[in-house]
Amino acid sequence: MAIMHFDLRAGLVSVLSLLSDFGLKDPYVAEMKAVIYSINPDAPIVDVSHEVKKFDIRMGAFILASAAPYFPAKSVHVAVVDPGVGTSRRPIIVETSRSFYVGPDNGVLMLAASKETMFSVYAIANPGYMLSVVSSTFHGRDIFAPAAAHLSLGVSPSSFGSAINDYVFPDFAKPNIENGLLAGAVLYVDDFGNVISNISSESLEAAGLAGCRHVDVVLSEGRLCLPLGSAYGDVSVGEALVLVGGTGFVEVAVNQGSASKTYNVAVGDCFSVSTQR
Amino acid sequence: MAIMHFDLRAGLVSVLSLLSDFGLKDPYVAEMKAVIYSINPDAPIVDVSHEVKKFDIRMGAFILASAAPYFPAKSVHVAVVDPGVGTSRRPIIVETSRSFYVGPDNGVLMLAASKETMFSVYAIANPGYMLSVVSSTFHGRDIFAPAAAHLSLGVSPSSFGSAINDYVFPDFAKPNIENGLLAGAVLYVDDFGNVISNISSESLEAAGLAGCRHVDVVLSEGRLCLPLGSAYGDVSVGEALVLVGGTGFVEVAVNQGSASKTYNVAVGDCFSVSTQR
Amino acid sequence: MAIMHFDLRAGLVSVLSLLSDFGLKDPYVAEMKAVIYSINPDAPIVDVSHEVKKFDIRMGAFILASAAPYFPAKSVHVAVVDPGVGTSRRPIIVETSRSFYVGPDNGVLMLAASKETMFSVYAIANPGYMLSVVSSTFHGRDIFAPAAAHLSLGVSPSSFGSAINDYVFPDFAKPNIENGLLAGAVLYVDDFGNVISNISSESLEAAGLAGCRHVDVVLSEGRLCLPLGSAYGDVSVGEALVLVGGTGFVEVAVNQGSASKTYNVAVGDCFSVSTQR
Repeated sequence: MAIMHFDLRAGLVSVLSLLSDFGLKDPYVAEMKAVIYSINPDAPIVDVSHEVKKFDIRMGAFILASAAPYFPAKSVHVAVVDPGVGTSRRPIIVETSRSFYVGPDNGVLMLAASKETMFSVYAIANPGYMLSVVSSTFHGRDIFAPAAAHLSLGVSPSSFGSAINDYVFPDFAKPNIENGLLAGAVLYVDDFGNVISNISSESLEAAGLAGCRHVDVVLSEGRLCLPLGSAYGDVSVGEALVLVGGTGFVEVAVNQGSASKTYNVAVGDCFSVSTQR
Repeated sequence: MAIMHFDLRAGLVSVLSLLSDFGLKDPYVAEMKAVIYSINPDAPIVDVSHEVKKFDIRMGAFILASAAPYFPAKSVHVAVVDPGVGTSRRPIIVETSRSFYVGPDNGVLMLAASKETMFSVYAIANPGYMLSVVSSTFHGRDIFAPAAAHLSLGVSPSSFGSAINDYVFPDFAKPNIENGLLAGAVLYVDDFGNVISNISSESLEAAGLAGCRHVDVVLSEGRLCLPLGSAYGDVSVGEALVLVGGTGFVEVAVNQGSASKTYNVAVGDCFSVSTQR
Repeated sequence: MAIMHFDLRAGLVSVLSLLSDFGLKDPYVAEMKAVIYSINPDAPIVDVSHEVKKFDIRMGAFILASAAPYFPAKSVHVAVVDPGVGTSRRPIIVETSRSFYVGPDNGVLMLAASKETMFSVYAIANPGYMLSVVSSTFHGRDIFAPAAAHLSLGVSPSSFGSAINDYVFPDFAKPNIENGLLAGAVLYVDDFGNVISNISSESLEAAGLAGCRHVDVVLSEGRLCLPLGSAYGDVSVGEALVLVGGTGFVEVAVNQGSASKTYNVAVGDCFSVSTQR
């Protein structure tokens, strides 16, 4: 039997978020929204990003994990970076202590979901909650969008299919901590050119580096000694620094400039931090 | 007398969609939304696309026709690809069995509207439903947005002006079917590089090709023998196939790659399909 | 004591608008919307533009000033072009006769606000209306978004902090009028390539040029004698003209072409208009 997980009448509002690698030129994002509004016209929809690099599951996972903590409880997040659409990879719902995540079983949901207390993962199989015709090429519209809309109306995730345990959990690299050296990687380069690592502020503290005035950073172009600040404006325009950015991860930035261009850094490059030698 | 075509109190919800060639940098799309919310703050607004190539009526028509079927009944679709703004071309409303379409009388609305049962086309002339000052350069904001907002509130389309019969119906190419050969053209290249033709799934069936395992496709770079599949993942990464995509049209795609780059294909190129020789 | 400036129960609707230089790839815009919906899930949110050139306060100010007049009264506009984030520059609220503006005290709000009757400027200082953790890098999410959401719920701007008089008022160039010569500058080049000056339609009338059939325009590539029209279609495709565009400023446009490419013009270039010699 379906259990009502929350009661819309009690004032809880479910916001729906959408993330994809579709871009905004094509009609695909609009088709997902049209399907959602056909089922639940009252839920606000927020675009997290549709500019994820095509098929880049890690980039999608990072952007979703950055944004999800700011959404209200009981939000429903749909993420469609889905190179395996139409194959045997399953459509899933992840239920956590505060959110629902809907998308393909390829790891794109898991970086965000694992920051919350995960309850269960369900394989979506009930055709009653899909469009009447399901294409093999666009599950975002035909399966994920209707599932999200029904979740936002209070349908229990167990109504969509069976709980599963063999879901994909991605091995996104975590930094190593050794004797005060944090050895990580570049997880993301944002539109300002800020170079964001997979080293969290907690890791920085655990390694005893949070109080330093300067740190050594190893990027692709060698070792840099940079000030450890808290705001881009802590250094002069054009100067570089290390700080914990708005995403909660350690980044290298250039005040009003582009660190990725200055240091010629790309996603996946080595990014390590240590005390000044 | 104005007739109420539907009753908002009965629970029907009107979603407004917007399509244009404005891009998202300029304030133009926001101005249209601001005007709509000034008249009807309750209607959800969905952006179909604002990345239509400047003045490309056919591209706008295709994207709108792809998205419209997924919207709820009584949605109001505004499409502004309008090279003749400020000239004698008329602003029109098309009323169909399930939707309203608002935009210039240049064909951009007709590919979508003609997939539904068309009732009437009205020339918008009543200044009571326009902004008080109407510019000659931006009818999207001054005429189309207010018309759409008033339609979403239940104003009858006949209140805006007279029914007309001499509207523009575009001659977007349709494929020829001859002895099992479907001779069409490339209608659209999406952001994934999928090459979408004007050959519908119905045409494929009518030509007796729907059950083939392989088909011959003639693209700009010559004849290709490709598997006819149903999902991008039916072939290995980097391999090409033919399938009916999410838009309902026959396309050539490369699994996790770009067919348009692989075969150097652009909109308007020849695209024909036949049985394997 | 906080004063209720308007009463939502009386039917007034507050629309929230967002402008930034964040782009749409990163999660930053979504994080602002998530924060807003966590506080006020009922206010419609309109994106004015997130494609402002990084740190270009004047461009942001122009786009906001173009769009704001079309929003309903009591709208709340958030503009985040904020090179000084995390430094001593203050977060402010500007209250005018019809709108609220929220953003950094660097001038980005003032071109729009000064077109309305300005009441007061307040420095946002009350942590009760900020996120519980305020970063030094992203005040859009941590300070401006929550302030805007609380304003939209009817919280008085004086509840956020003290009124100030020493706010930044930008010196965006205004045109000089001398003997029928309007000497201005290029304020903006839109996505169509239309070259928009800082010369308003009122200035054109004041200089006695509004009735001319042709005018002389000095752009970067020398003096042009161009027809003064009212619609792009007043000249043949590919031909240039001068007109007052949808933004209310004098622009040079090429019908279905790009004036900025044709005449090699960029923002900041000289743009003057006079009677035909």
